[in-house]
Amino acid sequence: MNRILIGNAVVGQSGGPTSAINATLSGVIRGVSENRADGKIQTLFGMRNGIEGLLRDDLIDLTSFFDCEEKYRLLEQTPAAALGSCRLKMPEPGADPAFYERLIHLFEKRNIRYFFYIGGNDSMDTVLKLTKYLKTASYQMSVIGIPKTIDNDLMGTDHTPGYGSAAKYIAVTVQEILRDCAVYRIPAVTIVELMGRDAGWLTAASALGRKITGSEPDLVYLPERIFEMERFLKDVREALSRHPNVVITVSEGLRFADGHYVGEGRQSGATDVFGHAYLAGTGKVLESAVKNAIGCKVRSIELNLPQRCAAHLASAVDLSESVTIGKDAVRAATGGVTGEMMVMDRVDAPEYTVAFGHRAIGDIANKVRKVEDRFINAAGNHVTDACVDYLLPLIQGEPEILYKNGLPEHLIF
Amino acid sequence: MNRILIGNAVVGQSGGPTSAINATLSGVIRGVSENRADGKIQTLFGMRNGIEGLLRDDLIDLTSFFDCEEKYRLLEQTPAAALGSCRLKMPEPGADPAFYERLIHLFEKRNIRYFFYIGGNDSMDTVLKLTKYLKTASYQMSVIGIPKTIDNDLMGTDHTPGYGSAAKYIAVTVQEILRDCAVYRIPAVTIVELMGRDAGWLTAASALGRKITGSEPDLVYLPERIFEMERFLKDVREALSRHPNVVITVSEGLRFADGHYVGEGRQSGATDVFGHAYLAGTGKVLESAVKNAIGCKVRSIELNLPQRCAAHLASAVDLSESVTIGKDAVRAATGGVTGEMMVMDRVDAPEYTVAFGHRAIGDIANKVRKVEDRFINAAGNHVTDACVDYLLPLIQGEPEILYKNGLPEHLIF
Repeated sequence: MNRILIGNAVVGQSGGPTSAINATLSGVIRGVSENRADGKIQTLFGMRNGIEGLLRDDLIDLTSFFDCEEKYRLLEQTPAAALGSCRLKMPEPGADPAFYERLIHLFEKRNIRYFFYIGGNDSMDTVLKLTKYLKTASYQMSVIGIPKTIDNDLMGTDHTPGYGSAAKYIAVTVQEILRDCAVYRIPAVTIVELMGRDAGWLTAASALGRKITGSEPDLVYLPERIFEMERFLKDVREALSRHPNVVITVSEGLRFADGHYVGEGRQSGATDVFGHAYLAGTGKVLESAVKNAIGCKVRSIELNLPQRCAAHLASAVDLSESVTIGKDAVRAATGGVTGEMMVMDRVDAPEYTVAFGHRAIGDIANKVRKVEDRFINAAGNHVTDACVDYLLPLIQGEPEILYKNGLPEHLIF
Repeated sequence: MNRILIGNAVVGQSGGPTSAINATLSGVIRGVSENRADGKIQTLFGMRNGIEGLLRDDLIDLTSFFDCEEKYRLLEQTPAAALGSCRLKMPEPGADPAFYERLIHLFEKRNIRYFFYIGGNDSMDTVLKLTKYLKTASYQMSVIGIPKTIDNDLMGTDHTPGYGSAAKYIAVTVQEILRDCAVYRIPAVTIVELMGRDAGWLTAASALGRKITGSEPDLVYLPERIFEMERFLKDVREALSRHPNVVITVSEGLRFADGHYVGEGRQSGATDVFGHAYLAGTGKVLESAVKNAIGCKVRSIELNLPQRCAAHLASAVDLSESVTIGKDAVRAATGGVTGEMMVMDRVDAPEYTVAFGHRAIGDIANKVRKVEDRFINAAGNHVTDACVDYLLPLIQGEPEILYKNGLPEHLIF
């Protein structure tokens, strides 16, 4: 696309919330207002609930709303998606042309020439389909995907905005749980279940204390390795022989060799305890297995939603990168880029440095980036030092959070 | 006790960990080192794992260890119990005199004349029994209980050290969950299960946003009210008729009229889903009930251990009071007080103010302070404004936490 496009822009958020997705939204708004768009973007509209907001013409004029620095700061420390989110699966362009014709009509009506979509894998599928359709249409518009996901599982980028804050939350919380578990002397196993159905990046972050405080979980199980119950119980027994307070982190996505999730509770001693109609959860199944096989005190806990929304404990590096990638998306789009996702490459330098760029969406969408083999130990029950080294820079720094009467301030609009 | 005692002191921590119990330990050490004891205490020993450490002669010389301000600061921001904890139930003094004779022998051996015990209800039982025994013995020692519990359920004090930090963690996390739940437009119920088996103070803290951000859970259920499933489902339906994203907080200690815990899963649609051998958890049972009766999207989450150990989010007011009450315990003991628990009274003043004092342990131990009637609404499904007003001062202020490479520093000794 070489024609210079002048008009308005829309931005949307899609998929699961994170602590940093609003920082990226702020970056896009900042990018437009700081005139990085060289005057090519007049008004930036926010789509409420992603593409669904566009379809029901529910847009907010962000250019007018963000009239002072304080609003940006508050937006950047607000968790979840300030514009709302959606999980709409777009039809294939060939299968439902009427859907796309309606979209184009809505774009034309407001002279939308720039489309920014902040999201994870499903959202990049939206970017890909819209890009494909536009190649066959006469309407000209730049379409840019901006990554966010706590799962860190998008291809083509060193890591994803949102992951660093989730990793920091997990690393800090696991340290606190390690302190908590250390207070008694009787043998006890604590199993912490972490998010990550297909990739173990979040669970890997539980080991970050290794190079900071010197304390970390005894065992760490990622979904990149087949889970074997007997091997697990052997690992637990060995850990208990070393010290009384054993802490284990597991990914919710662990699977047995037959492909079934551990959390389905189909194997092991958990089979009889939980009904088939209900997913027991990985931690609960393993808790039951340890109780039956070893008989010591055991409990399981899920860190659950706070992993993706505990913005009070965001990583300053993550928030800063999330703002920058939003700003850069604006510059890339008005510079003529379309059909690409913004990415971060780690520069080979003594200090941690990333270079911002973009890659074709077709090479990225609908793929899953797993934890690499070199990051998992040979026994498949912990992460390597190389993994900790990769993760460490991403959780650095504590943003200065604005509080009011004891609670962090959030921007709701 | 009017005789002036000169000798050594022991301090121990007992019961469940909190984010502030180490701040109280720091206060006791500060109290001794700042010579608030007027030279009456020579060496302060820490008992590892509470009274158990005394019994196995596992003591640490705290007077020597704490030789700089940085160690105090790190101790004050370290969660759980730095000295370790125990759940030892002391025998009745009359039932097992040999046990007490052994204790006295250990005290004599090290000339221990001051005994400080930081803990909750069970720990105050230890203080009470030791006090009772000493009344019949020739050995003279001052015995002081210092309260800590996230449950806020000790009698005789306006609130307990440790509660404010847990309340702040819950208030902040529930705000973040409210943001997270607001991103989609489809009807969904999120049930957040909070700690508190006998008293609803922790669950009440989930409503603190009312007077700060204006957002709070739709429904709040405390164990002070009998739980009725039909009434609950009616409440949920009404809430869903008002807006799509319903958030409910419930105490783990909710009970039916027949006295059974809701989390036992004996009643309602949950009966068939969970096995009898396993406590399903209050949230899971209610999730199942909503799914069966209403059929909308529903999930339940437990905030779990972080409620008591998320020291990165402690309340500055709580930490400050926790240090002060520890210091004051030293002053009280060396001033001749024994057999009492340190307390805080709220002073009737325009600004939140507490007065530190002490009350006879016999009036405090083995009682539970429930949430008062005036703090619960007439429908029994939320808290009153008076409750929010009582809670607000306790979560104020964010302590400056020292971080190293992205994680809070903890003192481990």
